[in-house]
Amino acid sequence: ANIVLLPGDGIGPEIVLQGQRVLDAIATKFNHQFTYQSCLIGGIAIDQTGDPLPQPTIDACLASDAVLLGAVGGPKWDDPSAKTRPEVGLLKIRKELGLFANLRPIQTFPELVGASPLRREIIEGTDILFFRELTGGIYFGPSGRETIDGVEHAMATMVYSVPEVERVVRLAAEAARGRDGRLTSVDKANVLEPSRLWRQVAERVVREEFPDVKYDVVLVDAMAMHLISRPKDFDVVVTSNMFGDILTDEASMLPGSLGMLPSASIGADGPGLYEPIHGSAPDIAGKGIANPLATILACAMLLRHSLKLEDEAAAIEAAVRKVLAAGHRTPDIAAGEASIGTEAMGDEVLKVLA
Amino acid sequence: ANIVLLPGDGIGPEIVLQGQRVLDAIATKFNHQFTYQSCLIGGIAIDQTGDPLPQPTIDACLASDAVLLGAVGGPKWDDPSAKTRPEVGLLKIRKELGLFANLRPIQTFPELVGASPLRREIIEGTDILFFRELTGGIYFGPSGRETIDGVEHAMATMVYSVPEVERVVRLAAEAARGRDGRLTSVDKANVLEPSRLWRQVAERVVREEFPDVKYDVVLVDAMAMHLISRPKDFDVVVTSNMFGDILTDEASMLPGSLGMLPSASIGADGPGLYEPIHGSAPDIAGKGIANPLATILACAMLLRHSLKLEDEAAAIEAAVRKVLAAGHRTPDIAAGEASIGTEAMGDEVLKVLA
Ligand SMILES: CC(C)[C@H](C(=O)O)[C@@H](O)C(=O)O
Ligand SMILES: CC(C)[C@H](C(=O)O)[C@@H](O)C(=O)O
Repeated sequence: ANIVLLPGDGIGPEIVLQGQRVLDAIATKFNHQFTYQSCLIGGIAIDQTGDPLPQPTIDACLASDAVLLGAVGGPKWDDPSAKTRPEVGLLKIRKELGLFANLRPIQTFPELVGASPLRREIIEGTDILFFRELTGGIYFGPSGRETIDGVEHAMATMVYSVPEVERVVRLAAEAARGRDGRLTSVDKANVLEPSRLWRQVAERVVREEFPDVKYDVVLVDAMAMHLISRPKDFDVVVTSNMFGDILTDEASMLPGSLGMLPSASIGADGPGLYEPIHGSAPDIAGKGIANPLATILACAMLLRHSLKLEDEAAAIEAAVRKVLAAGHRTPDIAAGEASIGTEAMGDEVLKVLA
Repeated sequence: ANIVLLPGDGIGPEIVLQGQRVLDAIATKFNHQFTYQSCLIGGIAIDQTGDPLPQPTIDACLASDAVLLGAVGGPKWDDPSAKTRPEVGLLKIRKELGLFANLRPIQTFPELVGASPLRREIIEGTDILFFRELTGGIYFGPSGRETIDGVEHAMATMVYSVPEVERVVRLAAEAARGRDGRLTSVDKANVLEPSRLWRQVAERVVREEFPDVKYDVVLVDAMAMHLISRPKDFDVVVTSNMFGDILTDEASMLPGSLGMLPSASIGADGPGLYEPIHGSAPDIAGKGIANPLATILACAMLLRHSLKLEDEAAAIEAAVRKVLAAGHRTPDIAAGEASIGTEAMGDEVLKVLA
């Protein structure tokens, strides 16, 4: 398989390197051949080409089987008056690759649950899989400025079409079948017309195609509450782009170990994009102390979703759990224990896999 | 002063009654005269007039000095195919009274902090005042459906104008001056054009008119995280309608005592609207066990913001703290302690005020 690496900015290169080492170990162990091509995205791409997503990167991704991304952005490119910004590269690659579904598993690791801001009895055992619609909604609708009677206005349009809702709800409902069989759709149908369409379509898709899935609907404001008060009650959650942006970030705080959480963005066919959900952490870049486990778990998702290598994915996930159980910690997840660096953590995962 | 009561649905009438008793006690104690007029809103208004906000209610509110609302809604009016819904009354009264700013204090009560889903050391001492823009944004922009090439689309438009941002930011910055002097503006300026306008205007207003206020900007997804991991770091927070809807509900879970939280919606002049943030709780309606303290604290906000009676407001707040310290609890905030009912809780507050 042909894998594009997009190390990006900050700690991106360090953690992607550990991901690649783990993929290589899987290739050896399970007798696969993975070839890699490294391309530019984000701030480093702006510095070298003026474009946060240069065309050669798009071409390479489109020709690949899967894409592994580190992180983009940093204070260097934060000037609001700059011509372009690293995040523009992120939004563009989602559109170019047709990555309409962002999967974010929110899991707790028993060893780390003491670091959760939530009380143990509330968070322990939480296991949610979010599906966030990623190429529609208010992120990509018509927008602009207009001066009306001398007063400046700015607008952005939230748009959803029936097929856009159908395809992401289908993916989510399928995933629910392979898990606890429960699906929650989150909207704001009491106020927003696109949410009313979303609710109608989601209900129809589940009723007609997934009658075995236990389905319910929650308003986005209520969901923001439930995630804190009873996170264990949810299995698969599907929602629109903007609500998913907010709710998945809220949910990512619950386990107390942001450095452990991966994400996958997938489309109808073509390559998926896999990444840790944490950012480029410019404050610790180059220090060799970033936690590579979210990226390594993103590699497991890459194997599962893009390469259909379930055993290989499970092997990585089991290895990460073993490494944690053995007490190995990078500084971000250490609670008193001695900590190790990025490469040493990669080594520990490789040792278990060997 | 002339106060309109909008008891609404579910537990609404029970808690508004206790609010009225407390206002009467304040009138006696401080030698004021309050007159009341009770009007219809929500489900009960639909049942009696077909309209969730009948014109006589609007007229009475416009002629009043302040409005005290219980809660609206319930399963009886939840049919998605119904011609109208109780919440329509809420959205309409905000527009009719020009209530462009929703104030939501998120405070912790030392006696109740054990009920928070957050660990004590994270939540204890949290004291945030949210300003949510309430009559603009995607709630009130153009919306509709359109069939394009045979595919049904639904849209809603987020719109903000310069003066809409200015006025709510001004109120928030003024409030910051009277508190810890810090203001956080929350937007999604890396993606949404109205957020970029919001950020420009907010920065200018604070720089030009409130140079003494310590100001910062946080993205909405990051804010959803910070509220959980470090709620104590925030003083006054200002944001748009949709983001405020989600973030204030998220924040309302943090203290672990939803039944204690009031809210105020105010405009340029004219009456403000005061209410508990919890809903109509149809499951306990009529049982006499609803917690009236959020409504009683909403009465304190009414006295402070609409009637400019600061001492009277402070007297109510002090009385509520005393009642809690004395161990009185309705069932929702009891943790093992014996609990009392709605009216008995009202009695306790009256006793302290007497
Ligand atoms: C950087 C930003 C454009 C992006 C988004 O809002 O989608 C990020 O927050 C994310 O969730 O991947
Ligand atoms: C009921 C609904 C229309 C309303 C809103 O979204 O504004 C509610 O959630 C609120 O926050 O007051």
